[in-house]
Amino acid sequence: MLISKGKNHGLHMFVVPIRDPKTLKPYPGVIVGDLGEKIGINGVDNGFVMFNKYYLPRENQLDKLGGVDENGDYETPFKDPKKRFGASLGILSGGRVHITTISTNYLQKAIVIAIRYSAIRKQFGPENSIEEIPVLEYQQQQIRLLPYLAATYAMRIFCNWFSASHVTMSINSVDDDGPARGIELHALSSCIKPLFGWTARDGIQNCREACGGHGYLKAAAIGELRNDNDANCTYEGENSLLLQQTSNWLLGIWPKRYETGIADTPYGSIDFLKNVDQLLNEKCVANMPEELTNHITLIKTYKWLTAYILKMTYEKVTRLKAEGKDNFQAKNDSQSYNAVSLAIIYAENFVLNHFYQTAIKFEDAACRGVLLDLVSLYGAWMLERHLSSLYMGGYMSGEMGWWLREGVLKLCARITPQAIALVDTLAPPDWCLNSVLGTADGQVYKNIQEHVMTYPGAMSRPTWWRDVVFWQTYVPSKL
Amino acid sequence: MLISKGKNHGLHMFVVPIRDPKTLKPYPGVIVGDLGEKIGINGVDNGFVMFNKYYLPRENQLDKLGGVDENGDYETPFKDPKKRFGASLGILSGGRVHITTISTNYLQKAIVIAIRYSAIRKQFGPENSIEEIPVLEYQQQQIRLLPYLAATYAMRIFCNWFSASHVTMSINSVDDDGPARGIELHALSSCIKPLFGWTARDGIQNCREACGGHGYLKAAAIGELRNDNDANCTYEGENSLLLQQTSNWLLGIWPKRYETGIADTPYGSIDFLKNVDQLLNEKCVANMPEELTNHITLIKTYKWLTAYILKMTYEKVTRLKAEGKDNFQAKNDSQSYNAVSLAIIYAENFVLNHFYQTAIKFEDAACRGVLLDLVSLYGAWMLERHLSSLYMGGYMSGEMGWWLREGVLKLCARITPQAIALVDTLAPPDWCLNSVLGTADGQVYKNIQEHVMTYPGAMSRPTWWRDVVFWQTYVPSKL
Repeated sequence: MLISKGKNHGLHMFVVPIRDPKTLKPYPGVIVGDLGEKIGINGVDNGFVMFNKYYLPRENQLDKLGGVDENGDYETPFKDPKKRFGASLGILSGGRVHITTISTNYLQKAIVIAIRYSAIRKQFGPENSIEEIPVLEYQQQQIRLLPYLAATYAMRIFCNWFSASHVTMSINSVDDDGPARGIELHALSSCIKPLFGWTARDGIQNCREACGGHGYLKAAAIGELRNDNDANCTYEGENSLLLQQTSNWLLGIWPKRYETGIADTPYGSIDFLKNVDQLLNEKCVANMPEELTNHITLIKTYKWLTAYILKMTYEKVTRLKAEGKDNFQAKNDSQSYNAVSLAIIYAENFVLNHFYQTAIKFEDAACRGVLLDLVSLYGAWMLERHLSSLYMGGYMSGEMGWWLREGVLKLCARITPQAIALVDTLAPPDWCLNSVLGTADGQVYKNIQEHVMTYPGAMSRPTWWRDVVFWQTYVPSKL
Repeated sequence: MLISKGKNHGLHMFVVPIRDPKTLKPYPGVIVGDLGEKIGINGVDNGFVMFNKYYLPRENQLDKLGGVDENGDYETPFKDPKKRFGASLGILSGGRVHITTISTNYLQKAIVIAIRYSAIRKQFGPENSIEEIPVLEYQQQQIRLLPYLAATYAMRIFCNWFSASHVTMSINSVDDDGPARGIELHALSSCIKPLFGWTARDGIQNCREACGGHGYLKAAAIGELRNDNDANCTYEGENSLLLQQTSNWLLGIWPKRYETGIADTPYGSIDFLKNVDQLLNEKCVANMPEELTNHITLIKTYKWLTAYILKMTYEKVTRLKAEGKDNFQAKNDSQSYNAVSLAIIYAENFVLNHFYQTAIKFEDAACRGVLLDLVSLYGAWMLERHLSSLYMGGYMSGEMGWWLREGVLKLCARITPQAIALVDTLAPPDWCLNSVLGTADGQVYKNIQEHVMTYPGAMSRPTWWRDVVFWQTYVPSKL
């Protein structure tokens, strides 16, 4: 907080020197230390710092959006403090925008390892055949991996756009639409950071399990990806808590939905509110599985779902307030199944739309076809997890849920023959992937054999073997 | 496989000496080695072993259920080879039965740590108050932890019974009902091992995230629990694959459901098939949230759900066969959303019933009340995740799903004041829990401070600090 002449101007940023560059000792008034070993990312130092009457020169202000002059008077290019706050929120989203990319990178590595391994590893086979088939050809292996392959594509494509958008917004933060962009980007980064962190968490776990015991080897490199990604679910805002930044913003928009215009949504993330009353009265009209997984249906269904959960959450908060709860309590008691789901579904809706818009514009027709299958799989697989809400809200009925599931399975089967090409496109070089299961040449068993046979001590007796065999002949200690 | 005089008698067990006890070197014909570092449980050696024309004496047979005599003739106390197979399956379940206990132990430690921490850690507070409140009082923290507390109780109680049952069955394996018990225990262990492994996996992860950045410290001990538990999802049968042992058995019973009697289900796990046609025609009749979470409703709903998914899975396999697929392919293509869900739901149904039967008999009335709340929470929380199937099958309709969710949240709120007493009951001694966040005295911040401040090197400059500051003055290498 910047406080000057008795007035609190809110959140501001400063450059704070911690250590004297000549001695690397902390400056007087600063206590700083390392936090010790963590579950993962131990290559990054995390520490604590305490300040005691520690003074900074005025030049250390990062005052593009506001600061004090020599006389301590506050100066800002914004007349409206809310706009200054909006612009600074957008810039502060940088950490979260960056984390969406980190999560994507981890999942990208894991999915390459698991799919390459699954194409090589064989197990069982058709009746009356001595040939075994690659595990990737089994439905249950496909459903564990291919939706995460689709998710990786959606995330990779999204991150590239998201990072660029954040940079552009930061540069133009004092422009007219800077504050509106800042606020919407804050809402987006506060739910997409959790969405991608959790998708990577679950995807990496699926990859680990899909590789069986081999995946449990440290040399498979999946365990470390999981431990590293874990931090993405916590820093820059604990995921569950952070989602409130998004849901609170959406809850504030709902009662003003008829007056909401382009100025409120420069990134278009609340387009689902257009004609929302009419939208909420619609029902799914699909007559067969394929109709449920085509892009138009999926995108429309997501629109409906986002609006429905927003409406339900708003109504719950309103009801709790009518029952006498204050705003703090009413919001807290509307998180689980409501506000938390709302923020995640809003994020999924936005990422799905972005994925679709990018895929449909891809020039090469054959590649575009595969990309559009990935869009369908990503959308249908996510929707399947919200099936109950689609039924409770009356949008779906009868057997439609089973059709959607059939659709997901059919898409998995259709994408399987492309899976290796798709992961080869994503794969970093072998030395970077650093996994015995995931090398580009598919030599899984040679890699494992070389790793195991040359592991220090793997083939020898333990150094203390004599103590096990001859302990009875040892002269006892006289102590 | 035991093969004698040209005949294959199937799966049999032997004691196989690997190393010479005088030298600890492998016997000739045996190649054995360690597999190298794993993601977790590195205190346990995992290795590989290869045999090349390696001979064992006949005495090394574990031949209680069958083996060869001096002349190579096969001898067994069972006339029917299927019964011998059934009995040996039951005994071989030992590994899986044991793993259900290991998973439970890990989750038990994690939930103690996370709930104790959540009662101490404060964050934010009511409007117009400077007091912050413990994070455990927030709905979203409760929903992440309390269902897993209920699950831990269900699992702990179940494991005690499961282990004892397995021992009894093994001792009495050649009794008349030994084979039937063996087969049913095999079906149970093949789905409860996955269920508990996955529940522990997700519960530990929730505990980790619920403890925020502090939970990411290695000293919190949750990361290691996760890495160790991970193996439970893979060994003694990869979870997803292992579930087929259960679903195949159930699919075999479905067409014979009218003739199925007590002899086929000595443990009562297929009681849900009684009057199943009538059951499947019923609908949920609850009129308010509380009715959905009472024990009778929950248990009946689970019965319906288990029967419904079994019927749907059987019909899918039948349909695929009618379309020309062979048994292998038809079964493979009915795994996701069907056979896999079937085996898990069947496991949940059995564990829930066991939990209820145990809780209702608890003598102390006050404790019984709390235990029954845990039963309700466990059942309602699991059912919520199958809501879509309850709607698709026509059992639920309208707003019932939202009521069930309200019921889960109310149960969480009701159990919260008991949460510390409930984890104190489960908690091992502090030295065994070994977590800075989870000590019985609740001194979280003192523990963290002591741990961090005394961590080697935490408060000092790195040993190579001069290389950072003075590198420009160093005499360059002449190489």
